[in-house]
Amino acid sequence: MTVTETERTKTFISPNVANGIEEYRPRRSWRTWLIGRPLATADAPHQTIGKAIGLAVFASDALSSVAYGPQEMMLILAAAGVLALGYAFPLSLVIVGLLIILTLSYEQTIHAYPGGGGAYIVARDNLGELPAQTAGAALLTDYILTVSVSISSGVAQIVSAFPALAPWRVSIAVGMVLLVMLVNLRGVKESGITFAIPTYFFLMLMYLTVGVGLFRLVTGSLGPVVDPPHLELPEVLHPISLLLLLRAFSNGTTALTGVEAISNGITAFREPRSRNAGITLVWMAVILGSLLVGITFLAGHIGAIPSEHETIISQLARTALGGRNVLYLIVLGATTLILIMAANTAFADFPRLAALHAGDGFLPRQFTYRGSRLVFSRGIVVLGLIASGLITLFNASVTLLIPLYAIGVFLSFTLSQAGMARRWWKIGHLQPGEEVKEPGSTLRFERGWQWKMAINSLGAVCTCIVMLVFAITKFRDGAWIILVLVPLLVSGFFAIHRHYCSLARSLSLEAYGTPPLVRRHRVVIPIGGVHRGSLAALDYALSLSPDVTAVHVSIDPGESDRLRAKWERWGNGVRLVILASPYRLMLEPLLAYIERLASLRQPNEAITIVVPQFVPKRWWHNLLHTQTAVLLRLALLFRRGVVVTDVPYQVE
Amino acid sequence: MTVTETERTKTFISPNVANGIEEYRPRRSWRTWLIGRPLATADAPHQTIGKAIGLAVFASDALSSVAYGPQEMMLILAAAGVLALGYAFPLSLVIVGLLIILTLSYEQTIHAYPGGGGAYIVARDNLGELPAQTAGAALLTDYILTVSVSISSGVAQIVSAFPALAPWRVSIAVGMVLLVMLVNLRGVKESGITFAIPTYFFLMLMYLTVGVGLFRLVTGSLGPVVDPPHLELPEVLHPISLLLLLRAFSNGTTALTGVEAISNGITAFREPRSRNAGITLVWMAVILGSLLVGITFLAGHIGAIPSEHETIISQLARTALGGRNVLYLIVLGATTLILIMAANTAFADFPRLAALHAGDGFLPRQFTYRGSRLVFSRGIVVLGLIASGLITLFNASVTLLIPLYAIGVFLSFTLSQAGMARRWWKIGHLQPGEEVKEPGSTLRFERGWQWKMAINSLGAVCTCIVMLVFAITKFRDGAWIILVLVPLLVSGFFAIHRHYCSLARSLSLEAYGTPPLVRRHRVVIPIGGVHRGSLAALDYALSLSPDVTAVHVSIDPGESDRLRAKWERWGNGVRLVILASPYRLMLEPLLAYIERLASLRQPNEAITIVVPQFVPKRWWHNLLHTQTAVLLRLALLFRRGVVVTDVPYQVE
Repeated sequence: MTVTETERTKTFISPNVANGIEEYRPRRSWRTWLIGRPLATADAPHQTIGKAIGLAVFASDALSSVAYGPQEMMLILAAAGVLALGYAFPLSLVIVGLLIILTLSYEQTIHAYPGGGGAYIVARDNLGELPAQTAGAALLTDYILTVSVSISSGVAQIVSAFPALAPWRVSIAVGMVLLVMLVNLRGVKESGITFAIPTYFFLMLMYLTVGVGLFRLVTGSLGPVVDPPHLELPEVLHPISLLLLLRAFSNGTTALTGVEAISNGITAFREPRSRNAGITLVWMAVILGSLLVGITFLAGHIGAIPSEHETIISQLARTALGGRNVLYLIVLGATTLILIMAANTAFADFPRLAALHAGDGFLPRQFTYRGSRLVFSRGIVVLGLIASGLITLFNASVTLLIPLYAIGVFLSFTLSQAGMARRWWKIGHLQPGEEVKEPGSTLRFERGWQWKMAINSLGAVCTCIVMLVFAITKFRDGAWIILVLVPLLVSGFFAIHRHYCSLARSLSLEAYGTPPLVRRHRVVIPIGGVHRGSLAALDYALSLSPDVTAVHVSIDPGESDRLRAKWERWGNGVRLVILASPYRLMLEPLLAYIERLASLRQPNEAITIVVPQFVPKRWWHNLLHTQTAVLLRLALLFRRGVVVTDVPYQVE
Repeated sequence: MTVTETERTKTFISPNVANGIEEYRPRRSWRTWLIGRPLATADAPHQTIGKAIGLAVFASDALSSVAYGPQEMMLILAAAGVLALGYAFPLSLVIVGLLIILTLSYEQTIHAYPGGGGAYIVARDNLGELPAQTAGAALLTDYILTVSVSISSGVAQIVSAFPALAPWRVSIAVGMVLLVMLVNLRGVKESGITFAIPTYFFLMLMYLTVGVGLFRLVTGSLGPVVDPPHLELPEVLHPISLLLLLRAFSNGTTALTGVEAISNGITAFREPRSRNAGITLVWMAVILGSLLVGITFLAGHIGAIPSEHETIISQLARTALGGRNVLYLIVLGATTLILIMAANTAFADFPRLAALHAGDGFLPRQFTYRGSRLVFSRGIVVLGLIASGLITLFNASVTLLIPLYAIGVFLSFTLSQAGMARRWWKIGHLQPGEEVKEPGSTLRFERGWQWKMAINSLGAVCTCIVMLVFAITKFRDGAWIILVLVPLLVSGFFAIHRHYCSLARSLSLEAYGTPPLVRRHRVVIPIGGVHRGSLAALDYALSLSPDVTAVHVSIDPGESDRLRAKWERWGNGVRLVILASPYRLMLEPLLAYIERLASLRQPNEAITIVVPQFVPKRWWHNLLHTQTAVLLRLALLFRRGVVVTDVPYQVE
């Protein structure tokens, strides 16, 4: 015993005499093995990164979308027959145009918010609480879908290379999500280089594939795809209509998801932050645009067929690189890896955004809690579970998940750009030299604000149009889910906020007079029998107050008489009330009695129910006893002035 | 408010001045609608029944087994080809021989135990605790299987008449079980006549079918079954071996399940009880034997084929009665009804036996509790759930369930008859005129005890042989489950018994000295912040003892400084201890601190942890708060001398 006590005491370092505060250090447990040793709050890293690493850290989400964007675009076109696939290339050019507008818009955000310009912050500062919460809700759902879509697409690449694995799609995907979750629970301190390797590896191989493909095209040695997957045509071919093109375009815009990542993470960059982040954004846009156009062009040229069985990347790689060889496998491996990195990005963003919401009181405060590894562990776990659930529900199919995906992103794009436009408007109306401080940035008059406002307004209008097109053309395919979910989430956020606000008001000590102090104490002790347990509780009850009443619910009158006799001997003179229960109810008569006492309670009187509770040696023994204390506590929780105490009696 | 209080107070009738006891009457609720108005303990019925009604009440289990006994016997024989089915009739004669021995044995039990001679009581009185618990475990599993097998067979009759219902076998069966469960939860006060009608209806129709069949056989107009179900033969026909015959015989003995029912229920009979019960047993044996032989004989003659798709009863009825006409449907309906009545019998027996075990302390005491309708509701619900589970697991197939069935019955037969034999031995060694009282019966010298002992011994030996044959020949088909389960159950019963005994010992007031009384009270109040809730708890804490310590776990040093300042103003001079938690753990530092206090506790000192707890208006608000009180209580349950109290603070 003494040893254990010493052990226990050891967990406290000797009190620091200076401030009289003791420090607690946790002991090792199974979690240490799983997620690593606990980190103290003071261990939080403050490292910053350069442009090359920054690109690797923040661009994986955007860049990886070339693995599914063109494919999903072609899948829609295919409904109008093979010839319609030719529209993919011009559509990809339109998407690149949109990318240029977005990049220009976000360049301005990056310079305006050097402290991090996520849609939530920009909308909150410039548009107000409702747009901010809407942007937040849209982004949170979007991060969940980033994980589901990226991992599902990663599994699609694996299955393209090893078709025998097809039946285990869902299991592989869920396993990957849980793995990424675990890695994130450990915390990704070693981020920089671990991000750089797979990202640059992927870029190298992707450019190699596209480059070889173009070279062979020019030299005339690039043939069509050998043995392409079967094109699943509808019974009646759709005509090539505007609606069809818009639907294909919508799918293609999913390639732009993740463009906002750099503006969220500006603080991670080395000084001059905004400049470095801005340059990185341009790099990223150039790479993304070129790969998008290149892949779509080549895929069209070789006659690649969009299919659930083999990805476009796989068809392109084996056609350009000469069959299912080692290089082909490496390309698919790198693609899978970058898709996993994209999911990993969401695992960094979602918990951070959830913590931001929670800190503002719009999500449960628990999301602000940093786990033993200094990461927002609850957000990570919630994301992992929801994303796994979605993957299971949608059978790890990218095509089924896509209609849910891009609305959230484009909604947050719109709100963020509209916020920026509003900000320029405010800046334009400042006096030169005047400064206005806002939580996220400082407003200062700038020349040419009209141009800047125009750029952000263009961004807002374009992304808004894309969002509407997406919502309308994809409504029946699943977009309705998001259109229902986001308002629900937003109203949930506000309900949570109202709760925290009203709680803060009702707990506030402002205007706190002197409430009636507890001057009398009435104690009720329910007893089932007279034994050591109930006598221990009686002893405790008598130490609280001299006004103790024992209450017994009687089902069997004969047994009550015996109990009364026993009580006369052992009951220490305490008053015994017997409640007859001819209908054999145990809890209800007790509750009715307590309710009656409570209704007679005076303001300065406390009523304490002292419940004797056995604590058996083994957990399953609890099944052999009625848990009166638990039930009483639940039933009396809402009764003002009534406190339930259970006095544990440890059975030897 | 006042109205509600009056309402509440109304639930108590004015106290009976004579004994100072108040009575509680429950209010109406949704349960009233589902299972009827509550019944007071004094409402328990004490009606008794005559022989004709007694037969109906207790014989449905035994008589209904003619619906599956012959069929399952033939199913085994069919593995050796159509010709082997001819062995069914001689086997049925052997089974009738066994029935005669059983009847003679149980006649003696009925006269020896006029207060009810179930296997559990007979074994307990004469063989000891272990055989009694074994018999009980065997019977409990057997009652569960009675429900599963009878209902499955009932559904098989329905499906024979309406083959289109075949895909919904399991759902129909589970629905029936739940219906019978609900009827039993209401309580079957109106038992007599509701039992008599279906039982005698069934007997009438069964004798009609067999009678018409025999008449047409004699007159030569009984042809073979038209369009019989397809005989599913194994790839290689089994030879007709002794093992095959024994396996078929084993299946046939399931027809004898339920023979013990009358000896369990003697107390329900009108006086002279034993005589009336004894005569009823003979009637039942005659009916069961004649139907068994008759059905098996006719089934063999018309070339009925045992099958999962159409029952033997169905083939016999439509052949004897001239096709699938109204009479045929009525026969199948009556058969289904009697099978449901058989399940109903188990719903009466299982809860009663479970209550008997629980009363002796071998099952959770909750089983002795009579619900609002005076029935042992918990036993009824447990039986319903397990039987439904078994039906789902075994796909409502009688053939799959049968190997689990009869072992339990024959084990309890054996133990009960062995107990009786032991009893005659004891009687034989009494002096004439000497009397020995046992819990279940009185021993008095009787002449001819040797003969009586011989009969019960024969019964014990025969049923033991049947049990062994069954266990060996059916081992791989499922009997092993019971051979594993019964010992597990028995050891579980004893573990429960040990717990109750040791609890009773450790709670006993014998040799109870005067334990150290609580003379000092140390109160610890964990606080997360200084607000109205924590001040209300502080006020409560100060009403318990002047020795109060507030404890705050600090994750953020800056915030702790603010808290300390606030405490100086509002804390009523109470000592504040701050525990620094650089690893951001909340609960663990608090626990370590309390553990340390507890290790320094003096024998006459109580430590009370007063935890302020918000009670939000809506349940989901609880998700927005860490439930410190709940976690603390769980963690401190095993700490001697530490009591956790949560002071609820109702947020307006």
